Amino acid sequence: MATTGKQLFTTLTPDGTLTVAIEDVSFPDPTGNQVLVKMEAAPINPSDLAILVGAADIENASFSEGKFVANMPEPFNKGSKARHGLKLPAGNEGAGTVVAVGDSDKAKALMGQRVACVPGNAYSQYCIADAGSCLPLGDHSAEDGASAFVNPMTALGFAENAKMDGQNAILHTVGASNLGQMLTRICQEDGLGLVNIVRKDDQAELLKKMGSTHVVNSAGDDFMAQLRAAIEATGAFYGFDPIGGGKAVDTAFKAMEQVAVSRMTEYSRYGSTQPKRMFIYGRLDTGMTMLSPSYGFGWTLSGWLLFPFLQSAGGETVARMRKRVLDNLTTTFASHYKARVNLEEMLTKDAVTDYRAMKTGEKYLVTPWS
Amino acid sequence: MATTGKQLFTTLTPDGTLTVAIEDVSFPDPTGNQVLVKMEAAPINPSDLAILVGAADIENASFSEGKFVANMPEPFNKGSKARHGLKLPAGNEGAGTVVAVGDSDKAKALMGQRVACVPGNAYSQYCIADAGSCLPLGDHSAEDGASAFVNPMTALGFAENAKMDGQNAILHTVGASNLGQMLTRICQEDGLGLVNIVRKDDQAELLKKMGSTHVVNSAGDDFMAQLRAAIEATGAFYGFDPIGGGKAVDTAFKAMEQVAVSRMTEYSRYGSTQPKRMFIYGRLDTGMTMLSPSYGFGWTLSGWLLFPFLQSAGGETVARMRKRVLDNLTTTFASHYKARVNLEEMLTKDAVTDYRAMKTGEKYLVTPWS
Repeated sequence: MATTGKQLFTTLTPDGTLTVAIEDVSFPDPTGNQVLVKMEAAPINPSDLAILVGAADIENASFSEGKFVANMPEPFNKGSKARHGLKLPAGNEGAGTVVAVGDSDKAKALMGQRVACVPGNAYSQYCIADAGSCLPLGDHSAEDGASAFVNPMTALGFAENAKMDGQNAILHTVGASNLGQMLTRICQEDGLGLVNIVRKDDQAELLKKMGSTHVVNSAGDDFMAQLRAAIEATGAFYGFDPIGGGKAVDTAFKAMEQVAVSRMTEYSRYGSTQPKRMFIYGRLDTGMTMLSPSYGFGWTLSGWLLFPFLQSAGGETVARMRKRVLDNLTTTFASHYKARVNLEEMLTKDAVTDYRAMKTGEKYLVTPWS
Repeated sequence: MATTGKQLFTTLTPDGTLTVAIEDVSFPDPTGNQVLVKMEAAPINPSDLAILVGAADIENASFSEGKFVANMPEPFNKGSKARHGLKLPAGNEGAGTVVAVGDSDKAKALMGQRVACVPGNAYSQYCIADAGSCLPLGDHSAEDGASAFVNPMTALGFAENAKMDGQNAILHTVGASNLGQMLTRICQEDGLGLVNIVRKDDQAELLKKMGSTHVVNSAGDDFMAQLRAAIEATGAFYGFDPIGGGKAVDTAFKAMEQVAVSRMTEYSRYGSTQPKRMFIYGRLDTGMTMLSPSYGFGWTLSGWLLFPFLQSAGGETVARMRKRVLDNLTTTFASHYKARVNLEEMLTKDAVTDYRAMKTGEKYLVTPWS
């Protein structure tokens, strides 16, 4: 008995035509370890936007009920060659109620429960999810649990990764984001130093009110001096950046190196021997990452993704991280939403334009049955 | 009884005035583990040029006997702030004969021997060197041994590092350089795959004559296709780049990712899970390193320097590497020189202009007593 419901699909054709539309689909009965989740809430995270809208020309797109068609400009269209012609679902994560289960014990145990899940097609009325990756939410609402995975596990992942690498402090280039606020609370709880970079005074105020001691405003005249002082005080030669393009990473490396050089007693043409480590975990800026030759050779920059990290961290660590998220879902790991939209509403021009801007503290929640 | 001789010094003042001059200095008697080496030959490596000339305006410099004064343009002058006002020696490595020794057994054992050494002031008639870092050259000439350290140990270091990281193949962005030719021979001897990128047909010919099987000319119309094919054939998702600025690393990552994606059966918005690793070990191009957002998050880029690598590799590995260099000094690790200049000749306009261009296969050798 297949279940029928609405689901969002996004398709890019080789000529650069992006079609995002709601369709009626039928969901198969779950088998084995699978469960069928009636989705109640799913956030629109920056990591969802790349596939959902990307760099499409929304201003000149054509909108109709539950659908829009937009042009994907070059070089972004060519850069997405691998998805040309594929009809793809969207929505990494969400929460809902398990309404059908496969025949494994793990799956059966979830029948009727509200769970958070990571199905990859969360912008949908139903999703098939793996029982092992579902987090039972107990008495929490679907809205409480909708963002229980991506941001909480990523922020926790930063802290875990730093500890694995023997670090006592972290630098974060977008301190006031939803994820940045979680990271601020995590670092406080774990006694890790944290340098929070923000772009505005109100963001700095927000973080300071949360008790963040090293908040640096990149719009300030004395930004580099402040950044150096914060790195000096915390020892944060290790950081995470979701911007990707431009000079966010370069600036962090520069400040780290300047702190390290100021501690050297002898000049070296090769710069300091202080290892400097940055990770790019997002692409809020899809421009080129620019690295200047001004911090020697003692630096490493990597891409960072949640799933490969969890895989390398191992099951025991992941289970511990998930328990911590669940135990603190409405405190440390709370997410806030600016607006709630159903599947049709999320494809209107106003909504797309607004959530694609990815403004700090203005996250959207998709509620597919509202 | 101090020994007197000529030595090169390079000084940059805060106003951007670079003075490079030969001076008469007196060298102290060696103590303990030190030896005094009468230098006979020292190469001008790219790694020496940064401190020797850097980006100075040679065209409009003023030249006199054993001296030139040039302007260091911005932002390079400001970028060299840490050396402002310091009078620095130059020349990483060279070879000569030990003419005086400290009282340790290690030092005494070297008396009268011809050695290769890494004193940091090799553009000099005498150098104080640590006995432990001297490589006795036996019957080899000083010219044979002058470049026994930087290029041989760096090329060997790449192979060692690749093996430590479980790699079977290396990509090198400047295949036809002196170091690239050494790497080609090392990879052949060790059974490591090697992708050599060159810029010219004659460089490609040179490497092919040496038996290099995967030589790709970046000036060719089908460069990316050829590069992908070479990566596919060798499995080289791990490479070294001495250019630094521009898109050399970006191009390598792109080609690696395209090979990895072509092997995937399912599309992923995050790119392939194939780890891609590049190291920047030089700055032939002092412009910005540009990284495009077109190869997912499964990549890591680091600076690479010989001394930190040797330190992390440990004494046993370093001893094995040094023995291999000495055993194959005129074959695998042979260096060739375009010109021989004494200390005064190396500071003429023609010479500086020529060696600063760092043309492939046109290395200079400084012979301070000629």
